[in-house]
Amino acid sequence: MNLSKVLMNTHLSQFLSTIRIVLVQTYHPGNIGAAARAMKTMGLNELYLVNPVEHPSEEAHNRAAGAVDVLENAQVVSSLDEAIEGCSLVFATSARKRNYDKPQANVRKAAEQIWQEQSKTAIVFGPERMGLSNEDINLCTHHLYIPSNPDYGILNMASAVQVVCYELLQSQPDLADEAIFAANSKNLRSQKQVEYPSRDNMLKFYEHLEESLKDSGFINKNHPGEAMQKLQRFFDRGRPTQTELNMLRGALASFEKHVDK
Amino acid sequence: MNLSKVLMNTHLSQFLSTIRIVLVQTYHPGNIGAAARAMKTMGLNELYLVNPVEHPSEEAHNRAAGAVDVLENAQVVSSLDEAIEGCSLVFATSARKRNYDKPQANVRKAAEQIWQEQSKTAIVFGPERMGLSNEDINLCTHHLYIPSNPDYGILNMASAVQVVCYELLQSQPDLADEAIFAANSKNLRSQKQVEYPSRDNMLKFYEHLEESLKDSGFINKNHPGEAMQKLQRFFDRGRPTQTELNMLRGALASFEKHVDK
Repeated sequence: MNLSKVLMNTHLSQFLSTIRIVLVQTYHPGNIGAAARAMKTMGLNELYLVNPVEHPSEEAHNRAAGAVDVLENAQVVSSLDEAIEGCSLVFATSARKRNYDKPQANVRKAAEQIWQEQSKTAIVFGPERMGLSNEDINLCTHHLYIPSNPDYGILNMASAVQVVCYELLQSQPDLADEAIFAANSKNLRSQKQVEYPSRDNMLKFYEHLEESLKDSGFINKNHPGEAMQKLQRFFDRGRPTQTELNMLRGALASFEKHVDK
Repeated sequence: MNLSKVLMNTHLSQFLSTIRIVLVQTYHPGNIGAAARAMKTMGLNELYLVNPVEHPSEEAHNRAAGAVDVLENAQVVSSLDEAIEGCSLVFATSARKRNYDKPQANVRKAAEQIWQEQSKTAIVFGPERMGLSNEDINLCTHHLYIPSNPDYGILNMASAVQVVCYELLQSQPDLADEAIFAANSKNLRSQKQVEYPSRDNMLKFYEHLEESLKDSGFINKNHPGEAMQKLQRFFDRGRPTQTELNMLRGALASFEKHVDK
């Protein structure tokens, strides 16, 4: 089975591939490469660059790692207007809540909204130091922020792209997990079916354990206290497989033969 | 109102400040700085470096931006053992699901678990190219993965740190949002505190168990086989509380005194 097809066939991957990431006047070329990589790791590939200070560049190429295709296919334009052409949802991003006079949502809620609307969406990241200009913000329809430390909430630009793209993939968490499951299904199928003991077998083990602990002196026969209930609670929670239970019983038997009754 | 005090006073910020990020044999010093920045933007500050290839470095300093304090306070150690001392939950991270034979959760579910347990936690990131060695993975109690594109799921290491720290802040999404504008620590005091043993204590228990099982004859000293690994896997999965571990050790000691050495 072609693994990429598994993801590509999902509704989720189609959704992700239509979301455009727009970087405005990026100063450090390394950040452009790192953003491309961040996008691809989450299934996005549509990158627009508005007046990048340096592009293309060797540094961006290096930082893109396995996402050089995203970098090389990036569209370079000279205004945000051009970059958001054809988009109906346009999110300005910031690391904090702001009073932008726009509908505002944190990145998780924004991802949910984008998934629900399924219309052409752009997510816009401003220059590293200054953030987006008021003029550019006015071109956006919404504002998205990443919850962060109020003492220092300034994410690196590519890291912000990473969190936003991660939340877009996670907009359908079950699908996001499934995509991976499908991809790794070869590994998973080879996993042998795990067999769990019957409840009777567990109860027999507890009887066996209790007897041994009385014989060893750990539990006082006249005043047993709650030790057995507590141990039982632990073993129930751990839920040994049949193999593990056999081992535990074997270990117990090996001790028991040394204990005088 | 002083916003930083608002966050610092919340249970959430205290929780975040106890979580340790461990970077093993980081190759690119820039990634160390970027990881420090990623941590601080989400309210984390405890960084351990296991045998970094270059540290301290100018590049890390530059990439840390406003998180130079996190970088400068980083502890440098020479083994993962040292880095996780005192931690009871230790997560190995990867960008994919893996068959590590450890309890496995995606980063969002892991963050929920960490919030619920409120015990000392380390999150371990391997070297950029190779990931964690099997030996290092065995020191961990759990495995955490970041859902990603099955075609190319290799996040930059600092970007992975960013996503993990973001999810930790988001483990209480309402608080994360509120932390920025208002303090609200209702509901938090009612959380029950279960104490879990440190990893060190668990490893001591395993040593103790192994010795006893050799003395009892269950494990052949010359051909130990895999019994201990299997038992350890079960106990790691069951994750005894401190009280339960004390009981298990007491039970073991009660058997041991009957065994001839």
